[in-house]
Amino acid sequence: MRAVIMKSPGDVRVEDRPDPVIEEPTDAVIRIVAACVCGSDLWPYRGADDVHDRWMGHEYVGVVEQVGDAVTTVSPGDFVVGSFVISDGTCPICTAGYQSRCVNAEFVDGGIGTQAQYARIPYADGTLVATPSYPDEDLIPSLLAASDVFGTGWFAADAAQAGPGKTVVVVGDGAVGLMGVLAAKQMEAERIIAMSRHADRQALAREFGATDIVEERGKEGLATIRELTDGLGAHSVIEAVGTQESMMMALRACRPGGHIGFVGVSHDVEIPGGRLFMGLVHLHGGPAPVRRYLPELIRLVMERKVDPGRVFTTQLPLEEAASAYAAMDRREEIKVLLWP
Amino acid sequence: MRAVIMKSPGDVRVEDRPDPVIEEPTDAVIRIVAACVCGSDLWPYRGADDVHDRWMGHEYVGVVEQVGDAVTTVSPGDFVVGSFVISDGTCPICTAGYQSRCVNAEFVDGGIGTQAQYARIPYADGTLVATPSYPDEDLIPSLLAASDVFGTGWFAADAAQAGPGKTVVVVGDGAVGLMGVLAAKQMEAERIIAMSRHADRQALAREFGATDIVEERGKEGLATIRELTDGLGAHSVIEAVGTQESMMMALRACRPGGHIGFVGVSHDVEIPGGRLFMGLVHLHGGPAPVRRYLPELIRLVMERKVDPGRVFTTQLPLEEAASAYAAMDRREEIKVLLWP
Repeated sequence: MRAVIMKSPGDVRVEDRPDPVIEEPTDAVIRIVAACVCGSDLWPYRGADDVHDRWMGHEYVGVVEQVGDAVTTVSPGDFVVGSFVISDGTCPICTAGYQSRCVNAEFVDGGIGTQAQYARIPYADGTLVATPSYPDEDLIPSLLAASDVFGTGWFAADAAQAGPGKTVVVVGDGAVGLMGVLAAKQMEAERIIAMSRHADRQALAREFGATDIVEERGKEGLATIRELTDGLGAHSVIEAVGTQESMMMALRACRPGGHIGFVGVSHDVEIPGGRLFMGLVHLHGGPAPVRRYLPELIRLVMERKVDPGRVFTTQLPLEEAASAYAAMDRREEIKVLLWP
Repeated sequence: MRAVIMKSPGDVRVEDRPDPVIEEPTDAVIRIVAACVCGSDLWPYRGADDVHDRWMGHEYVGVVEQVGDAVTTVSPGDFVVGSFVISDGTCPICTAGYQSRCVNAEFVDGGIGTQAQYARIPYADGTLVATPSYPDEDLIPSLLAASDVFGTGWFAADAAQAGPGKTVVVVGDGAVGLMGVLAAKQMEAERIIAMSRHADRQALAREFGATDIVEERGKEGLATIRELTDGLGAHSVIEAVGTQESMMMALRACRPGGHIGFVGVSHDVEIPGGRLFMGLVHLHGGPAPVRRYLPELIRLVMERKVDPGRVFTTQLPLEEAASAYAAMDRREEIKVLLWP
């Protein structure tokens, strides 16, 4: 089969790899129907993470081809959405709803890689969720989004306790930030302030439910947010970047007692304890336990209540993966879907 | 009147100061019945905070002497417990329950100072709570504890979501940590693991409800906690020290999805973003909104359900404040009550 391999930073190729097979009784092998490039894939692409012949991709929807003897909840022929983290679904961490830190957790990329034609998914019962019926073609991008970017934005909004009467600030206008806007809207937040300097992203943020756009960054951006929140800061802040600057903005933009949901992968972030102490905020984040939310997110997509697939601004064949990475790296595209 | 002044680090004296008077219609003047030395008073005492002629003390119980025209909830003659932070009780931050970051918040020490015979309390309605009747003498230490140390331990346990079925780790065996043990017990935590190397504090921790004591620190301490929690870490962690070491222990001792309540005043703490991200914990803390909890804590004390006053291992006249500071600095006493 064909699979996307990052040979080294910036060097993405599509190569032949052996078809995966069932190795454990809890495995499923799926045919990938759609995959995509994640913002986090850009960290190794840009050399921020070490990378060498890495099998890429952790977002996926597909059709089950084969299952191991112990698999009970999905069957060959099922259309499935899976989390970007493998989880057994039965350990105390999973049953508490934090599947992304399952005691048997394994990030999908690296060992598996779903920017490919097929994938072996360990712990299929704990990782995959079947859709109630085979989805219409036009719903596939939105179901794919649920696998990570939408699930992660949803987790961020949930961790930030977005809800009725709340003002939510979204720091970061990447795909996850935009999904955070959509999630906050679904959670009936009263006011959603998107921080964005790009016209195309601002437009999508507004379509997803943003009521206000703040273009300024740093002190000016913070001053605007304070103005919009009676000087108090927001009830809820979604941090969807993962830099020191974005985390500090989140801390400063949040009112005392408010909630910050952070999902930007932290790169060299150091949170000053004194600032956090005096902030009196709630801070929760990390790799999103997407599996917890999948049944609800699939329902919302299948009932056409949400359209997170709009975050894919272009779609390419898997063979053109290198172009997809390059376009996202140049920020020409928000997110690129790959058809195997 | 007489008041405790820290002239410079390590130099504590009792000096004459003018009696306070009503300055604003929202003020009350109270006669201090009991005050005490806080662990946080030791930071300036040891030179970690800049200090020069500072009026000390922020924990207090007393009797109302006079009130301003706008005060409606307390009257002359009332026995009152107050928070260590002044709060107006009416701003959106207060009404959300985060009074310690009220828009008009003011820390009691510095400008006011309750290690004294009298104190002017601004925003009396938002800061003070009257007891239902004049308390028996033996309850006074416990009511005094509610003013900060018990209220802070309670907040930490609440922020850590201590409750039925939960395993709680308490990092720090100072007065606040011990109060965290007591609070977790009241909240019906199943297992309470106190980290302590001092026999007297271990004994008190056990009396307050600790089920396990961990004497080791660092890697060994963490290994023991993992052993005690099936390798997962605790559901709830109370951080009651405020150093880098204690915060890192809290982060490592908490299971994914768990809650850390931190109330140690952060001194030069830097939380590594990557560690926090992968931890997937909830982090909440800061200056405790004691005012939120005071009605409940007063009820528990007046009904003799709890005895947090036991944290005062000695009691001295206000005039001997210098000895009180010295004894706590040498860790000979856990906490010292001062009688004006």
